[in-house]
Amino acid sequence: MATTTEVKPLLPVKDPVPADIDIAQSIKPKHISQIAEVGLGLLPDEYELYGPTKAKVKLSVKDRLKDAPNGKYVVVGGISPTPLGEGKSTTTVGLCQALGAYLNKKVLTCIRQPSQGPTFGIKGGAAGGGYSQVIPMEELNLHLTGDIHAISAANNLLAAAIDARMFHEAAQKDDALFRRLCPADKSGKRRFAAVMLGRLQRLGIDKTDPDELTPEEVSRFVRLDIDPDAVMWRRVVDINDRFLRGISVGQGPEERGMERKTGFDISVASEIMAVLALASDLSDMRQRLGRMVVAADRQGRPVTADDLGVGGALTVMLKDAIEPTIMQTLEATPVLVHAGPFANIAHGNSSVIADQIGLKLVGPDGYVVTEAGFGADIGLEKFMNIKCRASGLAPDAAVIVATVRALKMHGGGPPVVAGTPLPHAYLSPDVDLVTAGCANLARHIENTRKYEVPVVVAINAFASDSKEELEAVRSAALAAGASAAVVTRHHALGGAGAVDLAQAVVAACSGGGGFKYLYDAELPIKDKIEAIACGTYGASGVSYSPEAEAAIAKFSAMGFDKLPICMAKTQYSFSHDATLKGAPSGYVLPIRDVRASVGAGFLYPLVGNMMTMPGLPTRPCFYDIDIDPETGRILGLS
Amino acid sequence: MATTTEVKPLLPVKDPVPADIDIAQSIKPKHISQIAEVGLGLLPDEYELYGPTKAKVKLSVKDRLKDAPNGKYVVVGGISPTPLGEGKSTTTVGLCQALGAYLNKKVLTCIRQPSQGPTFGIKGGAAGGGYSQVIPMEELNLHLTGDIHAISAANNLLAAAIDARMFHEAAQKDDALFRRLCPADKSGKRRFAAVMLGRLQRLGIDKTDPDELTPEEVSRFVRLDIDPDAVMWRRVVDINDRFLRGISVGQGPEERGMERKTGFDISVASEIMAVLALASDLSDMRQRLGRMVVAADRQGRPVTADDLGVGGALTVMLKDAIEPTIMQTLEATPVLVHAGPFANIAHGNSSVIADQIGLKLVGPDGYVVTEAGFGADIGLEKFMNIKCRASGLAPDAAVIVATVRALKMHGGGPPVVAGTPLPHAYLSPDVDLVTAGCANLARHIENTRKYEVPVVVAINAFASDSKEELEAVRSAALAAGASAAVVTRHHALGGAGAVDLAQAVVAACSGGGGFKYLYDAELPIKDKIEAIACGTYGASGVSYSPEAEAAIAKFSAMGFDKLPICMAKTQYSFSHDATLKGAPSGYVLPIRDVRASVGAGFLYPLVGNMMTMPGLPTRPCFYDIDIDPETGRILGLS
Repeated sequence: MATTTEVKPLLPVKDPVPADIDIAQSIKPKHISQIAEVGLGLLPDEYELYGPTKAKVKLSVKDRLKDAPNGKYVVVGGISPTPLGEGKSTTTVGLCQALGAYLNKKVLTCIRQPSQGPTFGIKGGAAGGGYSQVIPMEELNLHLTGDIHAISAANNLLAAAIDARMFHEAAQKDDALFRRLCPADKSGKRRFAAVMLGRLQRLGIDKTDPDELTPEEVSRFVRLDIDPDAVMWRRVVDINDRFLRGISVGQGPEERGMERKTGFDISVASEIMAVLALASDLSDMRQRLGRMVVAADRQGRPVTADDLGVGGALTVMLKDAIEPTIMQTLEATPVLVHAGPFANIAHGNSSVIADQIGLKLVGPDGYVVTEAGFGADIGLEKFMNIKCRASGLAPDAAVIVATVRALKMHGGGPPVVAGTPLPHAYLSPDVDLVTAGCANLARHIENTRKYEVPVVVAINAFASDSKEELEAVRSAALAAGASAAVVTRHHALGGAGAVDLAQAVVAACSGGGGFKYLYDAELPIKDKIEAIACGTYGASGVSYSPEAEAAIAKFSAMGFDKLPICMAKTQYSFSHDATLKGAPSGYVLPIRDVRASVGAGFLYPLVGNMMTMPGLPTRPCFYDIDIDPETGRILGLS
Repeated sequence: MATTTEVKPLLPVKDPVPADIDIAQSIKPKHISQIAEVGLGLLPDEYELYGPTKAKVKLSVKDRLKDAPNGKYVVVGGISPTPLGEGKSTTTVGLCQALGAYLNKKVLTCIRQPSQGPTFGIKGGAAGGGYSQVIPMEELNLHLTGDIHAISAANNLLAAAIDARMFHEAAQKDDALFRRLCPADKSGKRRFAAVMLGRLQRLGIDKTDPDELTPEEVSRFVRLDIDPDAVMWRRVVDINDRFLRGISVGQGPEERGMERKTGFDISVASEIMAVLALASDLSDMRQRLGRMVVAADRQGRPVTADDLGVGGALTVMLKDAIEPTIMQTLEATPVLVHAGPFANIAHGNSSVIADQIGLKLVGPDGYVVTEAGFGADIGLEKFMNIKCRASGLAPDAAVIVATVRALKMHGGGPPVVAGTPLPHAYLSPDVDLVTAGCANLARHIENTRKYEVPVVVAINAFASDSKEELEAVRSAALAAGASAAVVTRHHALGGAGAVDLAQAVVAACSGGGGFKYLYDAELPIKDKIEAIACGTYGASGVSYSPEAEAAIAKFSAMGFDKLPICMAKTQYSFSHDATLKGAPSGYVLPIRDVRASVGAGFLYPLVGNMMTMPGLPTRPCFYDIDIDPETGRILGLS
């Protein structure tokens, strides 16, 4: 097998590996200004401190470095995971610690901000693990610099604006609505707010003086005429609150019986989160927020945030959120945390802005390593076809993280269930089981090669893995077209355990090479869906429900058919069926419905039922979480 | 009349006074580290920057200064206001600008963090106005340092925990619940989480080993047995979302029909906000959060946050929120912004912690000026009897803000309605109308004198007020027992316009003098309610609905009867009826119901229907709010 290069860890590693929070709290972080200025090369006025361990990057750095050459761009994806996760974040962090602290490369880790839902629910935090973590993990897993809260607030202001508008339109005649929407100022003059001029334009009313509108034009202007049954916008909360999945609003005595069924999603599922992740600057974000389609009117026409007059306010609420947050790894390499779109109904990648800034900051000899959520069939596919299309960037290499545990599951091992002990098959060597499961890894490699990007497989080793099992994975990976496959022990050793992986990534990035998308965004909607289904998932075809057919026809008529596709599919299988492990093929992928995130800029076909609001278990993580009032030390976060 | 001392403004004042945001954006704030270190005397490790204009005070400063003498403590209240507000925040800020920038006193302004609801809804922001503002007003009125968001998240985690617990208890037998709540670790050993030991103690079960509980004890331990009709905890959102006032939750297909009616309040109405405002340190906050009563069980017994296991997690979510935020006025005097409890169902004052820290920081020759919400019958009464009781502090002087406009309304002027032009009576001199209205001011002065605190009346002058009107108010104030009554023009002139007021406050504070509460907290609940109703509101008696009688009996039986009283009453009248202007007397105050905020530490009788969730008008403020993408300048905030 490939032996791990023996490198002496710089961290005071212990065996067995202590709890994540104990490791994280044992390392004193450097002052973040040192990370910002020395690690990232920011000027003192290009970042703002949020305490000593967090800072936000000002977007002015983009202007300063607009002509600078980019560094190498590495995306980290994974095989189809078990519910326990295969250490993709941990590998991303460990790889960067190796690149920065051992190979002395300029390096930047780009990750998503985790939702607080899992922190207090089942899964725990998302800072990596063991000796490969982003610190302080308490900050990363809690409010950080408030971006998700800003998104929740913006999302919910928009939701309130929709219901309030329906309420006021129902209660008022055209002239009363118009009088209130365009009131006279002290001089008696009426004027349109700036945002109203856009609506007039969309309505084809070429006037700027309210007094010049005809009664018919007034009516068209003031009546959004939202169909209560066609409101697509839901409220959000960054908490696992299952009882908000399906609710009725408007039951207060003052709401005149305008009751309506709706629900809450978790905040990271908000389209606004996807907008933040895909916007390239403030102006682009303003445009995207304004054109988000939140409902249809009674004629079936789209109603946007700017029709409600709220796009500007949403942008103002996100004025700080658009700036990535600087943190650091345990080995003091820099990290940008930014955005955190759901990897399911959204695209599951950190922000375009963070990656763009990072590639300039690390320079041509440096590396930006960015993580793509879920398995490579989801997060990495969306990275290539949605995020890279939005950013204009192309990766120099892709890393696919694999574990013996997950490959055994794909080879036919018993189900892996969170919160229950691992079955015996996963704790004792079984080369045949692993080898059988490598079909899953092989397909992820082959899929990724279609983008003409070199693939490095990171075999994230656990203490229970045998040499023979690890070697079996390595051989299979190389056979499937990986340019390298490397065992990595960053969880136990920090960057020292990922030096081989780092060297393989450096080698892969040196190859030059091309990049191409899986599909042309100009193709009809169904062609794009089929390109992904057949070209990535191994399906033999696609079936569409009547709802999906109707939605495709509707979006095509609305002109939204040129948007890329963001499949909402289980991460546990290439297929729509989470129980189909390995590399299933010859099945027909069913599309239940198709929805649009017009501001974010994608259509999302629903493959099965998607859960957009997790629940709390009988004993949530929060039972163990507390604070020592004497020291302020946080206890029990994981 | 009292002439205003002619002091040359240090600010470049213009006439007419420009829009608030234009003034605010025309003054470049000092770097907040200068305010923190020079203005407040903090050491470099006693604050944390949140960008260049905001910082948070570390609570360690309390320890360093615990033996230092306190400064002078001034509370600002107001007469019963019109819906337009009488400039209480503006006066608070202007007074501090005068004390600091003109009289060279050490001074600190303590104000509440404004809700974002009004910022985007009807009222606009809450940074003061004209040349007396806290800057940057964009920061104050938006997310600030995230405290309200942290409160919303904590409030809603608790709400999710309640519904999830009811769900899991309904679906599982005792032993399954117990197995999940106290799972075996890797060694097979079961243990109670620390927070569970408190519940065992409350249940009288003197055991610490899960395996030693009898089946009967297991059942009592695992079953909170929450009565779905007796859940008192509601969810919150910091948005004016009227359609969330009354909702049904649990309508999703996975929730097994456990539908329940509930609703959302605006975040500042959360008990957690009141807890933050009344806690004196981290340990006190932890205890208060844990003992919040969120529901009753089917036997009518209280169920607390710690019974749900979530008190520690709530504290962790508020670990940054407990630190006050440093900002500055237009004339670079320091401000602490902290907490923002509703002045209605809660006590409407900024935090105990900010005031306590501030009094140490300004030292014996300095001044802390803290604002109390609504009219003095509400915010100031609660300041005296709830906040001072929690903090152990006593004010040296009280300022009552009055305007000619509001006094005319109390004297019989036509209704003042937000968003419609002011009637003529308010724009032309009418001394008789003003004089008739001074009964309202007189009663507020007399009420405040009952605390043995000297009263300074600040007559907040508008351009349309005549000399004779202002003099009439001054005479009436002095006749009613004010130690001074001063015309103040801080809106037009900044601190220069409030120098006379500042001198009057300095003089009032030099008198020594006593302090006493209006009532003894040990009295029975009804005696305390009647002390406020008759001693402050001018009622001749109090009537109780059957619900109120039952609640009083219940809370007395539960041992919550020693808590102070936080009346939930309209701010527009001394009475329960908003249309009764002036100084009504001889009426019976009806108590509709009584509720408890056990963690915050008060009972709140409901006098009429209280609105805890505002709505959006037809044309909310957000229509004008946008951002210039080139400069990042925020437009249209007011």
